[in-house]
Amino acid sequence: MPELPEIETFKRYLDHTSLRQKIREVTITRQRILKDVSLRQLAGALKNHSFRGTERHGKYLAVDVGNGKQMVLHFGMTGCLHYVDQDDPDSPYARMIVTFANGHRLDYANKRMLGRVRLVDDFDDLVDELELGPDALEIGADEFDERLRPHGGAIKSTLMNQSLVAGLGNTYTDEILFQARIHPATPVDALSAPERKRIYRMMRKVLRKAIDVQGEPDRMPRSYLVPHRHDGAPCPRGNGIVHRTRVAGRSAYYCPVCQPRPGRKR
Amino acid sequence: MPELPEIETFKRYLDHTSLRQKIREVTITRQRILKDVSLRQLAGALKNHSFRGTERHGKYLAVDVGNGKQMVLHFGMTGCLHYVDQDDPDSPYARMIVTFANGHRLDYANKRMLGRVRLVDDFDDLVDELELGPDALEIGADEFDERLRPHGGAIKSTLMNQSLVAGLGNTYTDEILFQARIHPATPVDALSAPERKRIYRMMRKVLRKAIDVQGEPDRMPRSYLVPHRHDGAPCPRGNGIVHRTRVAGRSAYYCPVCQPRPGRKR
Repeated sequence: MPELPEIETFKRYLDHTSLRQKIREVTITRQRILKDVSLRQLAGALKNHSFRGTERHGKYLAVDVGNGKQMVLHFGMTGCLHYVDQDDPDSPYARMIVTFANGHRLDYANKRMLGRVRLVDDFDDLVDELELGPDALEIGADEFDERLRPHGGAIKSTLMNQSLVAGLGNTYTDEILFQARIHPATPVDALSAPERKRIYRMMRKVLRKAIDVQGEPDRMPRSYLVPHRHDGAPCPRGNGIVHRTRVAGRSAYYCPVCQPRPGRKR
Repeated sequence: MPELPEIETFKRYLDHTSLRQKIREVTITRQRILKDVSLRQLAGALKNHSFRGTERHGKYLAVDVGNGKQMVLHFGMTGCLHYVDQDDPDSPYARMIVTFANGHRLDYANKRMLGRVRLVDDFDDLVDELELGPDALEIGADEFDERLRPHGGAIKSTLMNQSLVAGLGNTYTDEILFQARIHPATPVDALSAPERKRIYRMMRKVLRKAIDVQGEPDRMPRSYLVPHRHDGAPCPRGNGIVHRTRVAGRSAYYCPVCQPRPGRKR
C-alpha cells in the first residue's frame, strides 16, 4: 500500500510533468474508480482547464483545477501515475486518462482497483468528511501527544488509524516502532511520555528519509527495518532475527530483542 | 507478485509497443537490477539492434534481440513496463530504460527491486539452470500428474514450487484450489487421481480467464475467489466466510465449507 512517502513521490512527479497544460479530454476505463462523481461531471470540470498545483494530506493527493474544483486521487494498494505520449497505448491498468493539448497524457494506473478518483469543491472539507487526522509530517509534537494518549489499543494499529494522524500504513509504522524500540503490540496507555515523544521523533525521521529515497525500500539505510522486513531476516542492529506477528489483524514485523514485549525488562 | 497472467499481459504490451524499433541506448538506474550481466554487456548486445519477438516461460519473459542474445526480464513483486516518449521524465521506479530511434523509450519499472534483468544466449538453457518446470499453460495433463504425484508437502506450496510447474504464485494457487474445492493444506499424497485431474483442469481454466482480464482481480468473475481474497469476505458460492491461514509460511485464503480439511467429511 502506498503510504505518505509514495504519495509525496507521485505529487512531485505530477508537479514536474503535468501542471499548466490545457486539458483536452478525460477518459475513464473503469467506472468503479470514480467516487461520488460521474465521468460527465469530472470531464466537464477538467476540460479546457489545467492543473494549477497539488496538495497532499496523508495518503490523498488533491490536484487544483483552477475553477474552484479539485480532483482528489487515492492510490489504493497499487496506484501509480505515468506521463506518456498521447499516441501511445494505454499504460497497463490505466483507469483514468487525462489528455493534454501538449500531446501528452497522464495515466492514473491502479491494478487492484482499490484507489479512487473524486472531484470536490474544497479538499479541506473532504479531509474533514473522511475524518482524517493531521498529516503525519505537519502535526506538531504536542498535538501528536494529545491525540495519541486517549487512544486505546495497540500502538501499531493506533498509528495506522488515519483519524489520529494521516499517512501511515503497515510498512512505515513497523519502521517507526523499530526505530523507537517499541513492540508493535504495546498498548498505548502503557507508553511513557518519553516513549511517545520518541515515536513522534522517529515518525518524522522515517518519513523524511523515505521521501528522500522516493519510498524505495531498497534505498533505505541498512540500519532500517524496511529492507529486512521479512520473517527470519537478521535484525539490522545485529540483535536477533526479525519476527512476524499479527496486531489487530495486520502483519507486523519487529525484532524481539530490540523491541521486547511491554512488561519485560528492556 | 505478478504471476503467469500478469507476465503474459506485459508480453503482449511489449509486443504491441516495442518490436522492430532500432535501439539507440540502454540506461540502468540501479545496478542491482542486473543479474549476471554488466551494463556494458547489456548495452553492447542491444544497441543498434531491435527486439524481434518475445517468449514467456512461467514468470520469466525473454525478449529476442536478433543477434543470438535474449534479454530476460523477471518482475519480482511490483514490476511493470511503460512505453513512453523519450523526452518524458523517467517513470517512477524505472530501473532499466531502453531508448529507441523512433523517439520512444521502454521503461522497466520495479519499485521493490526484487525483479532482475539478464542477458542470455539461450532462454531454454536459463530455464534449465533455474530448474523451472514446464510452463503451467503448456504442460499436458499426464505430465502434470506424473510430476505432481511424487511431491511431498501441502498442495498449495507444491503448486507454487516453480520446479514442478512454472508460473503459479500465491493468488492463483488459492483460486485454483478454491475452484477445485480442495483445502490448501491437503498433502499431495492424500489427493485422489480425480482430485489431481480437477486441479489440472482448474489451473488451465483459472489462468486463461486471468489472462483474458489481464490479471485484474476486479474483472475476474464474481464466482471466483480472487475478488473476495480477504479474511472474513463472503464465500463467492455463498457457503460461508473466506478464511486466511498459513501454509508453509505463505498466506492462503480458502472457504472452509467448500474446501474442508482432508479427512473431514465433504
